[in-house]
Amino acid sequence: MTAPHHPGPVVGLDLGGTKIAAALVAPDGTVLTRRTDPTPATRGPAAVLDALAAAARAVGAAGATAIGVAAAGVIDPATGTVVSATDTIHGWAGTALGPGLTARTGLPVACDNDVRAAAATELATLPGEAVLLYAAVGTGVGGAVATSGRLLHGSAGVAGHLGHLPSPEASGLPCTCGATGHLEAVAAGPAITAHYRRTSGEPAPSLHTVAARAAHGDPHATSAITHGARAAGRALGGLANLLAPHRVVVAGGVSHIGPLYQDALRDAFTAELMPPLRGLRPVPPLAGADAAVLGAAVLARALHPTHAPTTGAPS
Amino acid sequence: MTAPHHPGPVVGLDLGGTKIAAALVAPDGTVLTRRTDPTPATRGPAAVLDALAAAARAVGAAGATAIGVAAAGVIDPATGTVVSATDTIHGWAGTALGPGLTARTGLPVACDNDVRAAAATELATLPGEAVLLYAAVGTGVGGAVATSGRLLHGSAGVAGHLGHLPSPEASGLPCTCGATGHLEAVAAGPAITAHYRRTSGEPAPSLHTVAARAAHGDPHATSAITHGARAAGRALGGLANLLAPHRVVVAGGVSHIGPLYQDALRDAFTAELMPPLRGLRPVPPLAGADAAVLGAAVLARALHPTHAPTTGAPS
Repeated sequence: MTAPHHPGPVVGLDLGGTKIAAALVAPDGTVLTRRTDPTPATRGPAAVLDALAAAARAVGAAGATAIGVAAAGVIDPATGTVVSATDTIHGWAGTALGPGLTARTGLPVACDNDVRAAAATELATLPGEAVLLYAAVGTGVGGAVATSGRLLHGSAGVAGHLGHLPSPEASGLPCTCGATGHLEAVAAGPAITAHYRRTSGEPAPSLHTVAARAAHGDPHATSAITHGARAAGRALGGLANLLAPHRVVVAGGVSHIGPLYQDALRDAFTAELMPPLRGLRPVPPLAGADAAVLGAAVLARALHPTHAPTTGAPS
Repeated sequence: MTAPHHPGPVVGLDLGGTKIAAALVAPDGTVLTRRTDPTPATRGPAAVLDALAAAARAVGAAGATAIGVAAAGVIDPATGTVVSATDTIHGWAGTALGPGLTARTGLPVACDNDVRAAAATELATLPGEAVLLYAAVGTGVGGAVATSGRLLHGSAGVAGHLGHLPSPEASGLPCTCGATGHLEAVAAGPAITAHYRRTSGEPAPSLHTVAARAAHGDPHATSAITHGARAAGRALGGLANLLAPHRVVVAGGVSHIGPLYQDALRDAFTAELMPPLRGLRPVPPLAGADAAVLGAAVLARALHPTHAPTTGAPS
């Protein structure tokens, strides 16, 4: 990761559709204070920005030199703007997240999407030249790529969307992006649950139900989980052949449903690898539920000091 | 690309299984002298190194400050060693290409595989922060990725192998790497020709035969070509969603067979793109058959002067 420019504590914020996690983080990564507040998602962008600023102040922004924000959706890190987002937070797309929070706190603000922020936590543990492939398999399938110690942003800031690769297992299935046959349409949590419903004819309210039934030997549940895991594993194995990463991380809620999933993903992954890469294995993230808020702090720490406003930031 | 460290002429060498292309290249990319010699492929690595050194001298290595070599196979740019290669050149795998050529010429030598060298030519025309996705579709399907102005090497130096991604169009087809269902197994030139033979029951000695028959309305030939093009286009579209590249280049012999191929590839590519990337189109390489030899010169120019031996390199 970039050399730290902020030697004092910084604030990390993780903005989700239901809650805001906030932490004051010391330079060594120690969490000094933390709290969780509800996201006023129905009250619009200004109320959410107010809530973020309040959370930052509550954990000790007065003693911090920068703020990092991890948020769902497509965030342009260069401008701090929400490029696109679902309407979980009403009117959120287009919000000037970074500038809005700087205006409320007087502190420089780094923004990125929550998956890239979580990947920043992971990247901080790798050597500078390492290549990182980070997948987040949950309600959707997202990800991040880092090369030369930097997270890839790419054109329009949208790099990392590994859920939108063609997947042989997803043939014919509609994807949230409008295309057909993408990985997300077979490997995301709701896709696995839908696959179970289709093949079993049984209702299932959530992936946890499917996982519980698989644990009791339900063949349709087992098959739905391994099918999604296999699709994700194959795609990640193919991407490993492209990127030759030093670490491949599989994070997100779906990755935690148990060894049935993890084993199927790993086996599918390794079957794709070219000979020079055959020792590579997908691993879980080093940080747990804290990854995005800690990663937001990593992003804040990497902010160049010249981004700081002339008032409000200690010299 | 990295700032040039060699302000004088450099030598570019492109080593193929049948011929060695050599050029003396000025700092502005102008080819000052060039020649082509046969590769003594059956006579072993020492004879090939001798032939490379002779070609370098013949184009004017005496007036150059560095040599770059583009070669087929997996080349470790850090050590200048041939990690793996087919046996087109007998005994080539394991050859200390860079050190062997330095020993023969007294000049510092940069090595990389021919696809990455060709991509270096393309990269030299892009802004420093651009992301480049470069595909070479020919006898195999190779490629290169560049981020932050640098070609990605990755673990074991093998980054760029986009032919070894799972492809829905390749389901069940064996790949040269030992896995099944990879892009190369459906999109490489020999794969398209084999597809035509299978579906038509007709012999066809080469892709050119298939292309000629397609031009005369043969539906099996048309279908084989568009099937391979579609597989390549879909994979590249998915990779564009991952990498958000600023430029996507499709090079290699297969890409030149005509508009039937190019149109099918482009349409499949654009159908995969997420909304923020929908303006992106695959483009042909800026350099033609010269791309690898010119790219080898770009690699030579980027060599750090401290790589130069203490004798033989002008100060």
